[in-house]
Amino acid sequence: MKPSTMQALVFDGEAKLRTDVAVPRPEAGEVLVAVRVAGVCSTDLEILKGYMDFRGVMGHEFVGEVVGVAAGDRSAKLKKWLHKRVVAEINCICGRCEMCRRGLSGHCTDRTVLGIDRRDGAFAEYVTVPAGNLHEVPESVSDDEAVFVEPLAAAFQVIHQVKIRRDAGVVVLGDGRLGQLVARVLKAANRRPLLVGRHAAKLEAAEKQGIQTALAEEFVARAEADFVVDATGSAGGFELAMRTVRPRGTIVLKSTFAAQTPCALGSFAPLVINEITVVGSRCGPFPEAIKALANREVDLAALLSRRFDLAQATTALRAAKDPDNIKVLIDVRH
Amino acid sequence: MKPSTMQALVFDGEAKLRTDVAVPRPEAGEVLVAVRVAGVCSTDLEILKGYMDFRGVMGHEFVGEVVGVAAGDRSAKLKKWLHKRVVAEINCICGRCEMCRRGLSGHCTDRTVLGIDRRDGAFAEYVTVPAGNLHEVPESVSDDEAVFVEPLAAAFQVIHQVKIRRDAGVVVLGDGRLGQLVARVLKAANRRPLLVGRHAAKLEAAEKQGIQTALAEEFVARAEADFVVDATGSAGGFELAMRTVRPRGTIVLKSTFAAQTPCALGSFAPLVINEITVVGSRCGPFPEAIKALANREVDLAALLSRRFDLAQATTALRAAKDPDNIKVLIDVRH
Repeated sequence: MKPSTMQALVFDGEAKLRTDVAVPRPEAGEVLVAVRVAGVCSTDLEILKGYMDFRGVMGHEFVGEVVGVAAGDRSAKLKKWLHKRVVAEINCICGRCEMCRRGLSGHCTDRTVLGIDRRDGAFAEYVTVPAGNLHEVPESVSDDEAVFVEPLAAAFQVIHQVKIRRDAGVVVLGDGRLGQLVARVLKAANRRPLLVGRHAAKLEAAEKQGIQTALAEEFVARAEADFVVDATGSAGGFELAMRTVRPRGTIVLKSTFAAQTPCALGSFAPLVINEITVVGSRCGPFPEAIKALANREVDLAALLSRRFDLAQATTALRAAKDPDNIKVLIDVRH
Repeated sequence: MKPSTMQALVFDGEAKLRTDVAVPRPEAGEVLVAVRVAGVCSTDLEILKGYMDFRGVMGHEFVGEVVGVAAGDRSAKLKKWLHKRVVAEINCICGRCEMCRRGLSGHCTDRTVLGIDRRDGAFAEYVTVPAGNLHEVPESVSDDEAVFVEPLAAAFQVIHQVKIRRDAGVVVLGDGRLGQLVARVLKAANRRPLLVGRHAAKLEAAEKQGIQTALAEEFVARAEADFVVDATGSAGGFELAMRTVRPRGTIVLKSTFAAQTPCALGSFAPLVINEITVVGSRCGPFPEAIKALANREVDLAALLSRRFDLAQATTALRAAKDPDNIKVLIDVRH
């Protein structure tokens, strides 16, 4: 017998741990997942600042076990997921709009997004997810590793969106979690990224993976890089990217911003003058990320910094704001 | 005998017509051009606001006749240009830097730019230009048409930088000179652009060329266009472009800005969320533009609004600020 209420971290203008949240009921085509471990992402921190005007249960990176399916839908398609350990894509799509029909369902115009846009997320004991979003996690991938599938997929998206030659000069700006993952994916693909960041300890973690690094304060932007991946999440990062990329080069923009920070529109001028291409990049292919973890192609060692129980979720959010922590996990194992 | 001083429009913080400017002397590899007609470009108006911190003779769009070559350099390579009617590319390159060696000389790191960056321009009786920048103008192309070669080349650059399928939805924002030329180039390439602008009379000029148009105030951005060309030259234009392009679509950015207008950095978020590609686009191939004019592939009818003598150059600049004028010419014929 599943309980009728649960613990969850709810954002209603501020983030509050509540113990009386109704356990969600899976609708048609959905499953109920008992969350095992969830990860705090910088997008969660943006939500605290008002990003997407989100209200509801926070969290979108997680691994869990399917413990129920939609009432009245006992189809084999749904039932096969019962008791599976899963991760889930975060965009919940309509399957009918122009974007879905064009095979761009990640951009479904009617989508809701787990813990980000009009849909409850995974900083909770239970979360409901469309079965079509699920991916089984192989035994060789631990819970802690599985939490990285979503951001690792986002990192893989970089090499899907732009063709980077083997000998290309590639600079990754930002030594946070996403920058670290992008650098690891590039390294695994036999490219030679330079990871630029503000934190010696974080850069050291990358150095241990054989990734070349530079402290931001010592890095001199020379407009020579063929590709720059901006994973800083800051306005300054984009401006640095424009000064780092060569004319006719490409910036891959991986950061979303909530802040209405004033920036100089004149800072767009180099984009035109130097004929730079900027590629916005968001979510990526889960199967590829799962495979890379299962095959040990990407090493996540040293990326995990702190872990908290769900009861300490607000503390976990505070810890995630500390730039010294690359990755903060929330443990929900029942 | 050429005179030793000339009339020229000089910018030294403000634009002044002077009559005592020394006629420039061509250096090694350069020719002296007697300007016939010059065109006012929106970049000139940006220079008035401080763009590039330019100081010197303004103007970069022109047609003229070669009337002299570098003293002491009577090589056939240089002399063959004498008495030719020419237009000139505006980037004056070093030929030695990394960019020049890579075949990207338009991005030469040591370049000067006619009337824009550390090099005197063409709102004058005479201008000096490296012979390598010259292109002969065929007889079938009039002086007034030839002035459009530089911006028309910039318009052609759009279809060189991005591959636009025949059935693609293409929106051009901005009914000014550049937007008009981009729409005409796309039309000539059998694409079907929708030109969006604020001025009924300008849109009518495009309609006469068989180009579909829409008034900005009646245009509803639906995030459906495969390609959007932003030729508005304004901050609002880029934001409108982001709302007009579909997810995974492409914005070609043709405007440079001098203004340090505050803009909301949050407006970058759609770029990442919708995985939009932004391609900065500047100068383009002169030979293609000249050929298109000679073959009457692109019709410039109705683009020319006003003409002034060089003596009235400051009035010409003011006229160019009037959004009702698509193109203002300065007549320098001797």
